[in-house]
Amino acid sequence: MTIFYDNRRPYDNYAASTKEWDVIFIGGGASGRFGSSYFKAMGGNQLTIEMDNHLGGKCCKNACTLHHYLYEIAVELDKARIWEKKEYWPKFPRKNGKVEILPILRDFMIGREYVFDFMFHQSKEQLNLQFLLNQPASIVDPHTVKVEGKGEFKTKNIVVTAGAGPSIPNIPGTNLKGVYTYANFLDLDYEPNDVVVVGASKSGMPWACFFNAVGCNTTVVEMMPALSQFPLDDDVRDYTLRMLKIRGLPVLDETTLISINSDSSGKVNSVTVKDKNGQTKNIKADLVYLATGCTPRSEIVSHLGVNIGPKKEIIINKYMSTNVPGIYAAGDITGGIMEMWKARQGGMVATKNILGNPTEFETDLFADTLHTFYETSWVGLTEKEAREKVGQVFVARMPVQGYKSWLPLPLCEGAMEYAMQWPDLRGFQKIIYDAKTRKFLGAQHVGYGGKDSFQYLLYLLKKGATIDDIANLTELFINPTHYIQLSRLRAGMKNLVDLA
Amino acid sequence: MTIFYDNRRPYDNYAASTKEWDVIFIGGGASGRFGSSYFKAMGGNQLTIEMDNHLGGKCCKNACTLHHYLYEIAVELDKARIWEKKEYWPKFPRKNGKVEILPILRDFMIGREYVFDFMFHQSKEQLNLQFLLNQPASIVDPHTVKVEGKGEFKTKNIVVTAGAGPSIPNIPGTNLKGVYTYANFLDLDYEPNDVVVVGASKSGMPWACFFNAVGCNTTVVEMMPALSQFPLDDDVRDYTLRMLKIRGLPVLDETTLISINSDSSGKVNSVTVKDKNGQTKNIKADLVYLATGCTPRSEIVSHLGVNIGPKKEIIINKYMSTNVPGIYAAGDITGGIMEMWKARQGGMVATKNILGNPTEFETDLFADTLHTFYETSWVGLTEKEAREKVGQVFVARMPVQGYKSWLPLPLCEGAMEYAMQWPDLRGFQKIIYDAKTRKFLGAQHVGYGGKDSFQYLLYLLKKGATIDDIANLTELFINPTHYIQLSRLRAGMKNLVDLA
Repeated sequence: MTIFYDNRRPYDNYAASTKEWDVIFIGGGASGRFGSSYFKAMGGNQLTIEMDNHLGGKCCKNACTLHHYLYEIAVELDKARIWEKKEYWPKFPRKNGKVEILPILRDFMIGREYVFDFMFHQSKEQLNLQFLLNQPASIVDPHTVKVEGKGEFKTKNIVVTAGAGPSIPNIPGTNLKGVYTYANFLDLDYEPNDVVVVGASKSGMPWACFFNAVGCNTTVVEMMPALSQFPLDDDVRDYTLRMLKIRGLPVLDETTLISINSDSSGKVNSVTVKDKNGQTKNIKADLVYLATGCTPRSEIVSHLGVNIGPKKEIIINKYMSTNVPGIYAAGDITGGIMEMWKARQGGMVATKNILGNPTEFETDLFADTLHTFYETSWVGLTEKEAREKVGQVFVARMPVQGYKSWLPLPLCEGAMEYAMQWPDLRGFQKIIYDAKTRKFLGAQHVGYGGKDSFQYLLYLLKKGATIDDIANLTELFINPTHYIQLSRLRAGMKNLVDLA
Repeated sequence: MTIFYDNRRPYDNYAASTKEWDVIFIGGGASGRFGSSYFKAMGGNQLTIEMDNHLGGKCCKNACTLHHYLYEIAVELDKARIWEKKEYWPKFPRKNGKVEILPILRDFMIGREYVFDFMFHQSKEQLNLQFLLNQPASIVDPHTVKVEGKGEFKTKNIVVTAGAGPSIPNIPGTNLKGVYTYANFLDLDYEPNDVVVVGASKSGMPWACFFNAVGCNTTVVEMMPALSQFPLDDDVRDYTLRMLKIRGLPVLDETTLISINSDSSGKVNSVTVKDKNGQTKNIKADLVYLATGCTPRSEIVSHLGVNIGPKKEIIINKYMSTNVPGIYAAGDITGGIMEMWKARQGGMVATKNILGNPTEFETDLFADTLHTFYETSWVGLTEKEAREKVGQVFVARMPVQGYKSWLPLPLCEGAMEYAMQWPDLRGFQKIIYDAKTRKFLGAQHVGYGGKDSFQYLLYLLKKGATIDDIANLTELFINPTHYIQLSRLRAGMKNLVDLA
């Protein structure tokens, strides 16, 4: 096995020249790399400048990939403790009642070197991109980029894809030893026992579930009502939260973090919060994990007259262009939701516009997933929103409301054993139609193996698919989601009535 | 918890009358039950007669559900042994080196009573179906069905949905103690050590992997070249087989079962096979599992002049009608592939035709999955077929051919840890496009969490989706299948060239 990329020195594979580039991408993360790939594929001449020692951005360094790694370990540990000593499952050995975290992180840090390596290989060998690594860039003017020790690069266009970094709440104690975000979590050098995760967010929940699953006494603190930021119906939200409660993971919602406190050595020992009744209390903690959002790194363009929004986001129009001609932006630096699809597609759309193929980027409608010990996925309208919007709706829901016996159907992949023995843990799902027009309006799923299909359910939604279209699909039984057969059970009716 | 259905006595919930029914479904399995649901939903008056004590057919009794249950246990056991004592994983305790099978089967048998119960509840309370249980029916003429002890029922139409039973090869020893099919596997009353599974088929492989995972010395015997019955490319087939080999599960292909042999007590002790070189040899076995297909139960119509095919299948036209007016058939009794979607949709299409809404049933194009320790899913043309049919194709494949280092990308759900430490086990995928028309032609995936999406990829295929359509989809990162982003990396090219 070979490590191709070298993290010790600057790297460049472009042919040195004084030529003018068609575009320079500032940042080689998701938006910069996919934008560059598309640019190259369309025949343009791109250069991508990355300040870190690898392409792929924070995703493969310490964010999405780490998030998923910890989530998958949380799922395995969760199964192991739920089934412990039942049927064929063994007693699960834990040192002092806990699984050690540091070896898990060490294995990730070894593995990610190979991820960086593949990013390098794919970008260089498969996609023929030109790029610089380990080289911070500054923008001199809309057609000039300066790299320390390399001089100035001339370019027709710049796409700013420099991403975002963790937001730190403005409270006392955030700089204490024992306070982490995704950005420094891999620096962890001790085994925590009492953990507070701040933010019941997409990035906070997988960490919280991981800490809970390894055996840390874990508490989630959230300013808003729990999971209220996600477009979920109450039944799906309740199921998701109940699955956390069963696992002993409290979510203190409508609760504000006041301060992070330390012992005399400067090490975190508690947090102070104000709860929903206005009561102040302390929670013991030897590790505080902040999942309180990200802030765009827009300072890179602040001297150029580029419009910046109140959350430090670069303001772009639907063609990915800033107010300064020649300067575009894509990905997390443009604010709003910070998702991979938005970064990648944004880079692609910026490319199309630069190369004279005017393309609008629509980011309002998307499917999404929250990771806990399950995946909670959603697309489209909730039942509540649908009832408000179209009036009469048809909903197929599993488990069935009012069914008092065990419902042993697996509602996701890997839930067959749960279904047979502990059916409450087998997942949850619903699909929502307009009862009059028969149009598919939305779906929600809690479980495993269903997330991938939500990519395509979004497509069906955008295409205006009806219950009849979905009932005519060909299911792959036993499918993790039962949308097709549930729809088929009712699609024969002229006037759709709930399966009550 | 309540058991609603009662397996000790006949059950009927139809109002006794001498009226003529619109339709009688003979058999309450997938095709009978979904056909009945659709019939009822369209306003028709149906009666469903089932000889067994529950609705849902063999699926929830001893076939598909059991198959998936064993598959999911095989997956868990497989992970437990691969990771044993690595990182946080425990030593996996086995009695005499084996996990006991009988408790696993017992738990299934308890659980399925609740499955039967839900089938009953859904059919009666949610769908308002009329049905009889525990009552074998015979067909007197196309408008008369006789039930022992109940008399004759008049009907305008009959849909024969009586299913299929296991095919038994015509060789010596198939009636020995220790020979099983899905139909009697739950009668198992001992712990086997040496198992031969006959048939590297969709129904044989999950059983074989289960036996292997619990610790039985397991061998698969297959007449054809291994997995050649599935439309898979060599690379996908090789990966699937290699994953079996790594787990110590040999597949003896192009090998014919000659006899099943016993000791003096009449208990199986070996099988005799003829291998691909014509050599005869014995394989030790105290359990033989036959997964050698199913035979339609068409004898139920043999006296009525209904056309029966060479494999005992009832011959139907594309409107689900037999040659005898008033008699339709659907599901496994019509032969060919025996899949849930075909049974359910067949019942639905028969209903539409009976109720005067002429509908053709197209069964040529479908997605499918083979369960081993992974799911191998496919849809559309293979790369080889595509090259023969359209000439120039574009293929995106992971892992990348010729990449010699570790490829740590997870290519399915639950593979993040494999990706970091044992990347060869992380899955496999490819997507195939027509390089000229840019049309999506097919996809194949080995892994977890991708099966559900193949239902929708089939829809995209039927709709004529292109690489540009797929590159414009909005992915849910980290998605188990990377089709969208792999497509996007190349979609910018006017002339598609492989990612080599």
